[in-house]
Amino acid sequence: MNYFSLAANHKLKHIINNLIKMADGSSEALAPTEARGCPGIACLALKRLVVGFVMKVWNFLNKAWDLGHSDPRKVIHCLKVGMALTVVSLFYYMRPLYEGVGGNAMWAVMTVVVVFENTVGATLCKSINRICGTFLAGFLAIGIHWIANRSGKEFEPIITGISVFLLASAATFSRFIPSVKARFDYGAMIFILTFSLVSVSGYRVDQLFDMASQRILTIIIGTSLCVVITMIICPIWAGEELYVLITRNMDKLANSLDGCVADYFNDSGGFAGSDKESDKKLLGYKCVLGSKGIEESMANFARWEPAHGRFNFRHPWKQYLKIGASMRDCAYCIEALNGCVSSENKVSELTKKHISNIAMKVSSDSSTVIKELAKTMKTMKKSTAIDLLVGEMNNAVLDLQEDLKSLPNLFINPQPQLPQESDDCPENNNTKAEAEAVALMDIIPLVTLASLLIEIVARIEGMVGAVQELAELAEFKAAGDRKANQNQTTNKVVPDQHALRRV
Amino acid sequence: MNYFSLAANHKLKHIINNLIKMADGSSEALAPTEARGCPGIACLALKRLVVGFVMKVWNFLNKAWDLGHSDPRKVIHCLKVGMALTVVSLFYYMRPLYEGVGGNAMWAVMTVVVVFENTVGATLCKSINRICGTFLAGFLAIGIHWIANRSGKEFEPIITGISVFLLASAATFSRFIPSVKARFDYGAMIFILTFSLVSVSGYRVDQLFDMASQRILTIIIGTSLCVVITMIICPIWAGEELYVLITRNMDKLANSLDGCVADYFNDSGGFAGSDKESDKKLLGYKCVLGSKGIEESMANFARWEPAHGRFNFRHPWKQYLKIGASMRDCAYCIEALNGCVSSENKVSELTKKHISNIAMKVSSDSSTVIKELAKTMKTMKKSTAIDLLVGEMNNAVLDLQEDLKSLPNLFINPQPQLPQESDDCPENNNTKAEAEAVALMDIIPLVTLASLLIEIVARIEGMVGAVQELAELAEFKAAGDRKANQNQTTNKVVPDQHALRRV
Repeated sequence: MNYFSLAANHKLKHIINNLIKMADGSSEALAPTEARGCPGIACLALKRLVVGFVMKVWNFLNKAWDLGHSDPRKVIHCLKVGMALTVVSLFYYMRPLYEGVGGNAMWAVMTVVVVFENTVGATLCKSINRICGTFLAGFLAIGIHWIANRSGKEFEPIITGISVFLLASAATFSRFIPSVKARFDYGAMIFILTFSLVSVSGYRVDQLFDMASQRILTIIIGTSLCVVITMIICPIWAGEELYVLITRNMDKLANSLDGCVADYFNDSGGFAGSDKESDKKLLGYKCVLGSKGIEESMANFARWEPAHGRFNFRHPWKQYLKIGASMRDCAYCIEALNGCVSSENKVSELTKKHISNIAMKVSSDSSTVIKELAKTMKTMKKSTAIDLLVGEMNNAVLDLQEDLKSLPNLFINPQPQLPQESDDCPENNNTKAEAEAVALMDIIPLVTLASLLIEIVARIEGMVGAVQELAELAEFKAAGDRKANQNQTTNKVVPDQHALRRV
Repeated sequence: MNYFSLAANHKLKHIINNLIKMADGSSEALAPTEARGCPGIACLALKRLVVGFVMKVWNFLNKAWDLGHSDPRKVIHCLKVGMALTVVSLFYYMRPLYEGVGGNAMWAVMTVVVVFENTVGATLCKSINRICGTFLAGFLAIGIHWIANRSGKEFEPIITGISVFLLASAATFSRFIPSVKARFDYGAMIFILTFSLVSVSGYRVDQLFDMASQRILTIIIGTSLCVVITMIICPIWAGEELYVLITRNMDKLANSLDGCVADYFNDSGGFAGSDKESDKKLLGYKCVLGSKGIEESMANFARWEPAHGRFNFRHPWKQYLKIGASMRDCAYCIEALNGCVSSENKVSELTKKHISNIAMKVSSDSSTVIKELAKTMKTMKKSTAIDLLVGEMNNAVLDLQEDLKSLPNLFINPQPQLPQESDDCPENNNTKAEAEAVALMDIIPLVTLASLLIEIVARIEGMVGAVQELAELAEFKAAGDRKANQNQTTNKVVPDQHALRRV
């Protein structure tokens, strides 16, 4: 199948290339003779237009092909929609079904088109919103219709009109309120729609109650079909998507933190295997910077989903947003670090070497902590090693600070191999100060890098806190003799964390 | 009117407070007698439940009131929706109108509910999508219905079913393609909806062409009504919103950059007038960090809008996204700066004083540049001063670097007022080195602050570039003798910008 499509792909490319050549050839042929009259030019222009159009369509199809190829679940989703629509069409094709819903089959088709979404959560959210909104609005509209009906033919349109105006305005306003917008936006829209339709139709339709109940029935049929199909055939769970997004972003964050520092000290030696690959790895944190919107919508939909896979119905999805926010806090600093590091600074290799080992240890320890957090989330088991790793990371920070303290020695005695140069005449102080000034300028990027690393470590602790909170809320199981291990490591290696920030 | 509502507000609060007291009073009365039997407890529980419910509703209404109070345009939008629905209801109330559209008035009502959006751009986008999607799908469906009709009663449902399956799947897939999703998402959905409805109804409805044309007519009536009302009564333009958002965010960015640095050096002296106010000002940059989503959707809608106010039809809205991105780049660094600055570091006031003036000059110069950019956008005139201001900012950065160079002097001679302490015995070198180590640790936060400031300045230049590009694209007018002025200032004060980054 794949081979076949590749071959077809290749053939189509060939045809299009020929077309382009034809168009080019005719334009080249035209050049020497300069003008063949209007029809020739028009023909050429038409040809170019057609080729341009074909090229555009070709590019579009190519893009679509890549999209489907990279995420086949999208293709499956499309087939699911097609299937649901074909099934719901049976209400038209089969007479007993069509008459069963009194010719209101249209609403079932409409419901399927509007409600069927990519994830189970989104479909459920829309389905429940649609059913509740329709019910509520239907009952209200029938009530008001009853009142309006009693007050005579003259007042009926006035009462109905005023009620439509007031309720539609109020429901529209409710859509601006954040808590409503997040969960019931679609429901509010359906409320307005149903209320207006039912209460206004009442003026023309005789058996309003029958109509309303049949519509509700068709809507229930349509939503049920959607929910069943979306949950049974290759379901895409919003919760699972959120979970995968967060853990994958954690890995990206770890890789780019590590890569960024290593890249700075190695300077394209060792780390940068293939340029594009390493660049992609380095800039992984950029995904974290812009992931707020998708995380929020996924968390919103995940709350509607029943228990699935390893997640309960009341899995603390909101906590994932906190983890995401703490990751972004960290990514902001990596972005600043990346900016400072990639600016054209000239630090001598000697000075770099002085803290390179320890700085790389801090970054690799930090990224180990992040990877451990990702592992905690992937296995859904409380980590036994996290306290130990955090302690190690903090120790590395302390060592980094020690090394920073010893930097002045480096530039007081810039050539430690020549101790005979120790001068003790006060006039030399000036030139020494100058040398030191140069040396200080030399270490500024290093100092910045170090203090940003320290800030990043502090923010990683925020991530650790958020993940541990998730572990409590979601009742992750302990792995082995966690308690004892934890106490031991906490007492042994975790240094005073406040001291770390007093750099 | 306002006074009246305030009084009503007050009265309602009083009633609710009484209710709460009543419930509390009965619970207190209950305590000594311990038990009055089941009915008493049930009554109490019911009371508490009611009070809790009333409180919740009250809080919700309060929030809604605040929302409407803070942005009255939202209330106006709601009234507009109500009005549009009431007007479109006339198609039901007036017999000639109702018969004119052959009882398809429902589609006009539905269109109004679904298409009416907060901004003109969004309404236009949905309207055009709806009309085009309906047209395209209608014609296609009628064509396929005609073919299916010819092939006999047996094959009709099969041909229709397959065509629905294929076209619905393809259209659903197209909604995943980013370029389609951004502009034609709603149109694709309407395409699926109309195609399914028309081609499937064809099996039951006799005069399909009449039905389709009447539905298209009602949809055009509905969308026209929405577009007219949204554009005439207090229009909210997506473009204007985007423009205001960007300029306001620029001001916020400038204020928080300035405030952040001033706050650090002043340490709650002078700057922090009222705490809440200054905190809000300091954290203004947070708005910039999270504004990507809203900017993108506004820019998307703005492209559909006709010329309005000072904006042409083809105003380069996309450039605003670039400006927004450059602002976010800047905000990331301010976030890191804020983190480093607010961590518990202890820098002696003496050391701080050494670079406080110049650092504050850099920050105030930078924020002046940002404010000038905001002014350029507000007035839509090319700034005459921007090059001068950028030059000044860069000069301040050079001065900052000079001052950093002189920092070593400070910690070689920590007490400049006691020059007799100059020691010249080599044994003293060790203690001096220790003192210097402490002093270096002392200046680390300052160095970090300085180099982040320098990075921020580099990123502000990115903002300047983006705004100037906008000025070219949107053909902002020059203010006065811009050209001459620019050349003069460029030659005079702008230092080598690459040198600045080589700190």
